[in-house]
Amino acid sequence: METHFQQELNKLKELLLKMAGLAEQAISNAIEALVQRNTPLAEKTIQEDGQINEMEILIDEWCLKLLALHQPLAADLRFITSAMRINIELERIGDLAVNIAERVVSLNQEPQLKPYIDIPRMAQISQSMVRDVLEAFMKGDPDLARSVCERDDQVDALNDQVFRELLTYMIADPKTITRAVHLIIVSRCLERIADHATNIAEGVIFMVKALVIKHRADAKADEIKK
Amino acid sequence: METHFQQELNKLKELLLKMAGLAEQAISNAIEALVQRNTPLAEKTIQEDGQINEMEILIDEWCLKLLALHQPLAADLRFITSAMRINIELERIGDLAVNIAERVVSLNQEPQLKPYIDIPRMAQISQSMVRDVLEAFMKGDPDLARSVCERDDQVDALNDQVFRELLTYMIADPKTITRAVHLIIVSRCLERIADHATNIAEGVIFMVKALVIKHRADAKADEIKK
Repeated sequence: METHFQQELNKLKELLLKMAGLAEQAISNAIEALVQRNTPLAEKTIQEDGQINEMEILIDEWCLKLLALHQPLAADLRFITSAMRINIELERIGDLAVNIAERVVSLNQEPQLKPYIDIPRMAQISQSMVRDVLEAFMKGDPDLARSVCERDDQVDALNDQVFRELLTYMIADPKTITRAVHLIIVSRCLERIADHATNIAEGVIFMVKALVIKHRADAKADEIKK
Repeated sequence: METHFQQELNKLKELLLKMAGLAEQAISNAIEALVQRNTPLAEKTIQEDGQINEMEILIDEWCLKLLALHQPLAADLRFITSAMRINIELERIGDLAVNIAERVVSLNQEPQLKPYIDIPRMAQISQSMVRDVLEAFMKGDPDLARSVCERDDQVDALNDQVFRELLTYMIADPKTITRAVHLIIVSRCLERIADHATNIAEGVIFMVKALVIKHRADAKADEIKK
């Protein structure tokens, strides 16, 4: 049977997964608003960030409660403090989706500068990183976390490519400058979303490694006792 | 006499102040490297970020240790988890100083686009925010924390001003575009540093408020008992 503490830990996992889902949806909505030039969707993305902010406070309070009431040790303590950290990262990802949506509102007031190819690709990779890193955390899977870190390089490369391409546009035709700068910032926001997912992934690797080292030490201690 | 736990809390405060000092210095160095076109200083700023990253791990581990060994409650628990959060914010501030320094290295390879006035002003305000918010945290001073939040508006306004001015430059002369984009990003980094300081400040206000509410509840409970 599950202990009360175990139930509360599961509730924490549930909350984090829900928050990650909201953050992922916010990225997806912001980029759909860009590609389909859908300003109401961009505005909806901005409004819905309130939910993510509320979730952040809720999760933080939940973690504090778990720490205060159950005074967990070792693995559980590390899990809860990691959850607090992930919570912060997810809230930032939500903020970045809002930054993108704000740029989209401006961009949609002018004709589209160019077909969007690399930016939706970046968004897709970033979303997959957010999704997978949460799974890696829940399962304590360092290999999946490592694959998230690797994808960060792809996003960085795409960001550089977008930056160089937009510079060319601006130099060729100064009328494109305002729109190009907005798009450079959208691209940087996606790059930073990928960075936040990578931060979480590094935390997962660190958390699992600490557990492995701890387990080995325990095993060794048991060995000595024998 | 100080308890062992109190000594360890004081050590945590010391570490955080040291880390904040390093972050503040990194901002200051990055902007000095920009204004004085001092590329070696920019490179030094990039290298020294390793120290900040090491401090982050050290402080995080220290907090975990305090939580695990002393299982603190209420005010102490909230203080330690707030410290963990501030630690993350300070590390990000260090990263942003590195981002600035990287742009400075590129900018210093070309003639200076314009005299820098607003950007050093932004840096000055952001640094004062980092300094004061740490003091607000240490003293549990919500008024000082609020003054930090207020300064964020000044930095945002300067960032908008820099952005508009640089757009004008780019439109007037496409040869300025690359440098102008670098400067827009430097300005955005400073704006984000101010955001991180504001995040800490909001946390301080929240922490103190929770304590105040807690104290009132305790007083009320005492009242009822009488």
